[in-house]
Amino acid sequence: MKTRAAVARKAGEKLSLETVDLEGPHEGEVLVEIKATGICHTDEFTLSGADPEGLFPSILGHEGAGVVVDVGANVTSLKKGDHVIPLYTPECRQCEYCLSRKSNLCVAIRATQGKGVMPDGSSRFSSGGQPVYHYMGTSTFSNFTVLPEIALAKIRQDAPFDKVCYIGCGVTTGIGAVINTAKAEAGCRAIVFGLGGIGLNVIQGLRMIGAEQIVGVDLNPGRKPMAEKFGMTHFVNPSEVQGDLVPYLVDLTRGGGDYTFECIGNTKVMRQALECAHRGWGKSVIIGVAGAGQEIATRPFQLVTGRTWMGTAFGGARGRTDVPKIVDWYMERRINIDDLITHVLPFEQINEGFDLMRRGESIRSVVVY
Amino acid sequence: MKTRAAVARKAGEKLSLETVDLEGPHEGEVLVEIKATGICHTDEFTLSGADPEGLFPSILGHEGAGVVVDVGANVTSLKKGDHVIPLYTPECRQCEYCLSRKSNLCVAIRATQGKGVMPDGSSRFSSGGQPVYHYMGTSTFSNFTVLPEIALAKIRQDAPFDKVCYIGCGVTTGIGAVINTAKAEAGCRAIVFGLGGIGLNVIQGLRMIGAEQIVGVDLNPGRKPMAEKFGMTHFVNPSEVQGDLVPYLVDLTRGGGDYTFECIGNTKVMRQALECAHRGWGKSVIIGVAGAGQEIATRPFQLVTGRTWMGTAFGGARGRTDVPKIVDWYMERRINIDDLITHVLPFEQINEGFDLMRRGESIRSVVVY
Repeated sequence: MKTRAAVARKAGEKLSLETVDLEGPHEGEVLVEIKATGICHTDEFTLSGADPEGLFPSILGHEGAGVVVDVGANVTSLKKGDHVIPLYTPECRQCEYCLSRKSNLCVAIRATQGKGVMPDGSSRFSSGGQPVYHYMGTSTFSNFTVLPEIALAKIRQDAPFDKVCYIGCGVTTGIGAVINTAKAEAGCRAIVFGLGGIGLNVIQGLRMIGAEQIVGVDLNPGRKPMAEKFGMTHFVNPSEVQGDLVPYLVDLTRGGGDYTFECIGNTKVMRQALECAHRGWGKSVIIGVAGAGQEIATRPFQLVTGRTWMGTAFGGARGRTDVPKIVDWYMERRINIDDLITHVLPFEQINEGFDLMRRGESIRSVVVY
Repeated sequence: MKTRAAVARKAGEKLSLETVDLEGPHEGEVLVEIKATGICHTDEFTLSGADPEGLFPSILGHEGAGVVVDVGANVTSLKKGDHVIPLYTPECRQCEYCLSRKSNLCVAIRATQGKGVMPDGSSRFSSGGQPVYHYMGTSTFSNFTVLPEIALAKIRQDAPFDKVCYIGCGVTTGIGAVINTAKAEAGCRAIVFGLGGIGLNVIQGLRMIGAEQIVGVDLNPGRKPMAEKFGMTHFVNPSEVQGDLVPYLVDLTRGGGDYTFECIGNTKVMRQALECAHRGWGKSVIIGVAGAGQEIATRPFQLVTGRTWMGTAFGGARGRTDVPKIVDWYMERRINIDDLITHVLPFEQINEGFDLMRRGESIRSVVVY
């Protein structure tokens, strides 16, 4: 069949809006009509050429929502008409990781996903007879896309696509970091570095679990009103702090954050986030993605005196199990997504969505087909 | 009163065997006759001058066992004749840390302990009218010493002093790192870097909790027989590994250690220990003390993909609560201490104990009064 798609032809160039060929689903695969997709910094990371594992030409996008149109042989958990969210972190429920009770990093299709192809080693997308690569196993910048059954979360039918698509990445990553990775508890004090899309979701995750104090740290004072709306109790602009930031934050939280979160991808901030965690028990969670080859560092004394340094991918969430729950939370108004989606654009304006993100004008732009 | 003591007069010099003056216990303090004391690398670290916080003249030693001789006013939990183990990490059961359920790093007397004095700001030791500093709040290299009540664990009367003194530091640190900090579970795979006194206690802690695989890593093949006796299942000599050590250990443990332990104090090994922890859930615990100013580093990707970097002090053990239990485990033969104590020396030969340790000839030397 044919489908409209925004193709990443070359690093550093705009996406090319094209009609490409899409092969139907093979065994264990599902054809999905994408109704809406968010634009995330990770897409920009790859499009810019900074991602050393980026492949071209490819169809980016990993934060979508849509409807099942067709299923391949031996697909048992999904049928035509089901509403779904694509999962760049699948959940096979069979591998060592899925069965570990300790990790969400399913490895069932990891090798092929990283190579931009389906589990059988081939791409479903092509253009002029030449294959076009999948991206993160999802490729939601195509109106129709094919995914393995294990990479789709079935969600309720009344959830709006142009809102819950954001649960496919940012919402789950931020809230999940709080509840699955940090396992923060009511009454805790927390510090969140970076008040973009991830940081705001960390903040609302902290509010949901009953945090006592939620300190937001950002150089941009324009982020303050939105962060307060999501639950931030104290705002700190590092450029306005006299002296070192770490002792300032330790004082503000009466000894350090019980939980601290780095939502930027800056290795220096990762160190600050660790070092302002509370002596004895503070946990610091790295969420942001650092540039290739960059390293974090600290004195081991920081760990020996009780701080824990950890990280999270997709908020530690198991996609098929946890994503439908988060959709429920949104529908029950326990979490706020609407205010995070600052721009909704027609598919034809997808490149403008990237521009808004690059200029820092959007929290999240969503493209609708 | 007078007491025999080994005084650290100057960095880098031998201990000076002297008779010094000891004032009786003030309010909340206890006079203890030390019967036996281990010699630990931390004592040597300070004696050598490498410890930036080292004070002179002082009376070192922090791994002792003895008998209560006298108690000061308002001491309620101990009486004359009680057998005790001094605690360099006290347990007041009142401070934010003791009440946190998350940490053993009691802060009740931290400020004065670090300054080499009792909680009221003065030293009980003096020589020729000049004060001699306490060390780690314990000073077990003196036949008689004074400690705060909260820095003494009351133990059973039938436990031999010249064995259970080792529970005052090394045994508890190693076993505690496994059970309190890593919280390792039956069936796990673990990697232990450094097969000295701490590493061997980590190994027997792992055996006790039912680890499936216990890999020991040391450049000294002479450590192998003892480590096997304590439960090591695989020995790796890094100098005999072709290529990089980390992938070799990952292969050997089928994906990495569920738990890895650094028992040396080498920041490069700390990085290796983290990076050979299992993707998705591996925890790496720093036990060794690095040189002043040294830093650890890694790529944040190591944490984002599920590894956790942590550290431990005194094995996360609460001294008054947990040390008596470990004494019981020794008396019930659940753990082995006897084989770790390779040398027992009279007090007069304490400097020879340091020499044995420096030459790597002892696991633990114990001095008896």
